[in-house]
Amino acid sequence: MRLRNKPWAKEKIRQYPQYVIPEPEKQKGKWREMFGNDQAIHLEIGTGKGQFIVGMARLHPDVNFIGIELQESVIVSALDKVIEAELPNVKLLNVNAGHLTDFFANGEIERIYLNFSDPWPKKRHEKRRLTYKNFLKAYDEILAEGGEIHMKTDNQGLFEYSLVSFSQYGLILKDVSLDLHNSDYQENVMTEYEEKFSQKGNRIYRCEVQFPPKKAEENEVLL
Amino acid sequence: MRLRNKPWAKEKIRQYPQYVIPEPEKQKGKWREMFGNDQAIHLEIGTGKGQFIVGMARLHPDVNFIGIELQESVIVSALDKVIEAELPNVKLLNVNAGHLTDFFANGEIERIYLNFSDPWPKKRHEKRRLTYKNFLKAYDEILAEGGEIHMKTDNQGLFEYSLVSFSQYGLILKDVSLDLHNSDYQENVMTEYEEKFSQKGNRIYRCEVQFPPKKAEENEVLL
Ligand SMILES: C[S@@+](CC[C@H](N)C(=O)[O-])C[C@H]1O[C@@H](n2cnc3c(N)ncnc32)[C@H](O)[C@@H]1O
Ligand SMILES: C[S@@+](CC[C@H](N)C(=O)[O-])C[C@H]1O[C@@H](n2cnc3c(N)ncnc32)[C@H](O)[C@@H]1O
Repeated sequence: MRLRNKPWAKEKIRQYPQYVIPEPEKQKGKWREMFGNDQAIHLEIGTGKGQFIVGMARLHPDVNFIGIELQESVIVSALDKVIEAELPNVKLLNVNAGHLTDFFANGEIERIYLNFSDPWPKKRHEKRRLTYKNFLKAYDEILAEGGEIHMKTDNQGLFEYSLVSFSQYGLILKDVSLDLHNSDYQENVMTEYEEKFSQKGNRIYRCEVQFPPKKAEENEVLL
Repeated sequence: MRLRNKPWAKEKIRQYPQYVIPEPEKQKGKWREMFGNDQAIHLEIGTGKGQFIVGMARLHPDVNFIGIELQESVIVSALDKVIEAELPNVKLLNVNAGHLTDFFANGEIERIYLNFSDPWPKKRHEKRRLTYKNFLKAYDEILAEGGEIHMKTDNQGLFEYSLVSFSQYGLILKDVSLDLHNSDYQENVMTEYEEKFSQKGNRIYRCEVQFPPKKAEENEVLL
């Protein structure tokens, strides 16, 4: 994501605490309270300019959406869309996804979306990829039983890496498309990157993976 | 595979029982004896005209190879290559892979190759795909602990289906390439179909999957 210098971004974010939630640590375990209902919560990591999350929130009023985006200068564009959409079921967090378990309690989230995540192609940057095993461990913690990750990317290397990383972690592949825009998948909501790179002729890859049932011992600990 | 009428094929196959093994049921559990050594045995299912299996046998003298091909009119071409190559480590079987467990004992095989298997794209033909769960169950039986399936195809639908089928069965993805001929994979031996379809510009997909460690109970039964 190209970063433009937007000194006013921080101030604008501060003006909309109902949309970009400040101090999200304080909401840990209480996100359903904040939304005021018992709907499933879906998280997008690396929301960018927000076209996907706002589009999804509009299409699925029965789901609550939270978009996480690190860059102030980018999340302000998502904020503009959220302000304009006036939807009760979408919130943004201007935080680093490296600290997910500070913001969400065990099992609080039903699904995670990873859309066009930074590929970090160099082997020595593997740990930064959002599908590296340390991230999967955090997703595992905050996801409820049967929780899923839905991933889209045009980056072949990242997609190959992620399929292997998911499998090695024990995740089960539910669905995969190696050319989403020429498939019969109907409900697609495009992201900004997806529009840009599919127009360039890049193939879009997509998969859905599911965490396996938690083991009996782990469940007992929770009782 | 286009079938040409080759009335002499059956007779030719019968003339080379040292290469196309007759009555393979009788060899069940005794394949290492037949090869006269303790090397790992790799099986290719749907060997076609034999370029892959003969090429592999030449490259890997420390492995024994068995190629299974249903069609007499096709396996004769593989037989020609085997006769010409004069290799001790490659045999052919003119049988239907639907009966694998009749020919091989539990754990007798180390690896299975599926190259450009018939895609059977219609949903009602799913059971015929060589990566359908019933086939995986047979592979699981005849493969040794840690056994692997290595698959190549240019058929996107079959590859997507197979990745999901493998994962649902519990197989672990070790490696995947979504464009083999533009990857850094070095040791590739091309099949006849691979040459033909990559020349047409089709992408070649490849993966390696591994069966998970057998469960303790199952191992106990074996003791
Ligand atoms: C390549 S962009 C894709 C944006 C959007 N998902 C799309 O498809 O158009 C990746 C985004 O992820 C954000 N990002 C990367 N790592 C992050 C992290 N650890 N926490 C939060 N956001 C992150 C970046 O700031 C960037 O906006
Ligand atoms: C599309 S061709 C590919 C041949 C070769 N592997 C290649 O890549 O050039 C598939 C082959 O699998 C064989 N085959 C299909 N089902 C089979 C089965 N159940 N048992 C044995 N062979 C089979 C067919 O006869 C055919 O020769």
